[in-house]
Amino acid sequence: MSRRITIVEVGPRDGLQNETAILEPIMRANLVRRLEGAGARRIEAVSFVHPKYVPQMAGAEEVMADLPHEAGRSRIGLVLNGKGYDRALGTAVDEVNVAMSATDGFGLKNQGLSVEQQVQMLADIMAGRANAEGAPGATPSLSATLSCVWGCPFDGEVSIDQVADLVGRIAELGVEEIALADTIGVGDPWAVTRKVEAARKAAPDAVLRLHFHDTRNTGLANAYAGVEAGVDVLDASVGGIGGCPFAPGATGNIATEDLVYMLERAGFETGYDLDALITTARWIGEKIGRPAPSALSRAGGWPRS
Amino acid sequence: MSRRITIVEVGPRDGLQNETAILEPIMRANLVRRLEGAGARRIEAVSFVHPKYVPQMAGAEEVMADLPHEAGRSRIGLVLNGKGYDRALGTAVDEVNVAMSATDGFGLKNQGLSVEQQVQMLADIMAGRANAEGAPGATPSLSATLSCVWGCPFDGEVSIDQVADLVGRIAELGVEEIALADTIGVGDPWAVTRKVEAARKAAPDAVLRLHFHDTRNTGLANAYAGVEAGVDVLDASVGGIGGCPFAPGATGNIATEDLVYMLERAGFETGYDLDALITTARWIGEKIGRPAPSALSRAGGWPRS
Repeated sequence: MSRRITIVEVGPRDGLQNETAILEPIMRANLVRRLEGAGARRIEAVSFVHPKYVPQMAGAEEVMADLPHEAGRSRIGLVLNGKGYDRALGTAVDEVNVAMSATDGFGLKNQGLSVEQQVQMLADIMAGRANAEGAPGATPSLSATLSCVWGCPFDGEVSIDQVADLVGRIAELGVEEIALADTIGVGDPWAVTRKVEAARKAAPDAVLRLHFHDTRNTGLANAYAGVEAGVDVLDASVGGIGGCPFAPGATGNIATEDLVYMLERAGFETGYDLDALITTARWIGEKIGRPAPSALSRAGGWPRS
Repeated sequence: MSRRITIVEVGPRDGLQNETAILEPIMRANLVRRLEGAGARRIEAVSFVHPKYVPQMAGAEEVMADLPHEAGRSRIGLVLNGKGYDRALGTAVDEVNVAMSATDGFGLKNQGLSVEQQVQMLADIMAGRANAEGAPGATPSLSATLSCVWGCPFDGEVSIDQVADLVGRIAELGVEEIALADTIGVGDPWAVTRKVEAARKAAPDAVLRLHFHDTRNTGLANAYAGVEAGVDVLDASVGGIGGCPFAPGATGNIATEDLVYMLERAGFETGYDLDALITTARWIGEKIGRPAPSALSRAGGWPRS
């Protein structure tokens, strides 16, 4: 029996959010369905952020209206604060992912909250969930993503202690899955191993998840190091989309099809159909007006079927 | 004391050989000098192949005439057979790299020799060296590169036994450094670990070297796996150049600056100056008429100096 790696598809959110082209909600729901057709089981479908700040994510409710609950599929909504969380509750999202930052600099810039204020925000959300009545299963499950774990564009280097401390506090609040994110793509695989080990020590019962950007081409090396360190859940974006093509140096998440290729070639199970995924990557490339930057959408798999 | 990784720069050979643009010998010697200025100590500078087959490599003698011996610098010439080896001896190359293939399919296509014929060719070269007179140091040192170790475009999958057997035979002939090459970029890091371990077992006294192409974005993950498996010598190409932009799916070697970034960020020593390397990558991008595809030439290092 081979090991199963769960890939959380974040193209409709982290990918599209950072593209210049703005896609209508109906097109974003269409992308979600195509990705599910290619094997995705968990998809970050929307972000409950104010459209003034991120116009690419406007109309989250419309996207979700097009995606009623379906067995075996989980659509995730990103929230940056309690207001976003309340919006998410009004939709059919199956999961909520709460954005946190390992640094004050990024937290203040990204969501107007210092690290302490973010922890308080999360505590308030968790308290509200504990008090909420309602049918079991009616409340979406919840995870948190800690950004800038391997470096912050404003505060610089981020220490292992800083990360371990925050992971521990997030877990203590009852969050069952915690994602560590290399938001600006500066991590190296040796540092991935060290921070994963520290996070596991700090939150031995939490599920760890990893989120890499391929800005400096270390994304798949980091993913490999994470899998070797025992992590079973990884974020990736179809086509490797994201990162404004007009912002020098910005790049997207690791590409789902590149990650699937690496894992499946090594004998892991991902549940994806590589050819269908490549087709979807090329399709979204047409929609955003530039070829998807992934390697597999250009080179194809191997051995060829 | 941090661990030292030696990077063999192959841009002037494996990179330029696969670009559409053809650079004059004087420009290729210029590239070698710029790379040496950025810290390269070993450079595959030329290929002694017939210009009818690879016009990009025409004038190897002229390139080398521009690069007289210099202490602490090693310029390597690739040879595909005894004729190429004899040409190399007439120049100032410090090292000769003999191309071998793990498969008949690639060997016949690339150099008109089956695996058995290649081994005989190498044996003849080694016998000639043993018989040669001359001042010590007058004969260039010699290494061999075994291509298609992780897969062949003609013969398909390549087994561990196939690789181990050939590595053992090459070592028995007296070759002190053996490179394992993922010529078409299909390897995954788990398979890198396995084949490196098998090669070491087959040739415990040889220096192992790794050569990766980034065709499916696994190049740096494979490099990381190789370093973790104890390999201290890796090939890379400035800018990640190579791979004809008009041949769908073809891509170059892993980019020297991407590899340097990953290694130096993790605390290894490479001897390279990352900024000078990025400058050189952008320069060669102008010369070949397309931006160098490396991540670092676009994103820059981090933390920024």
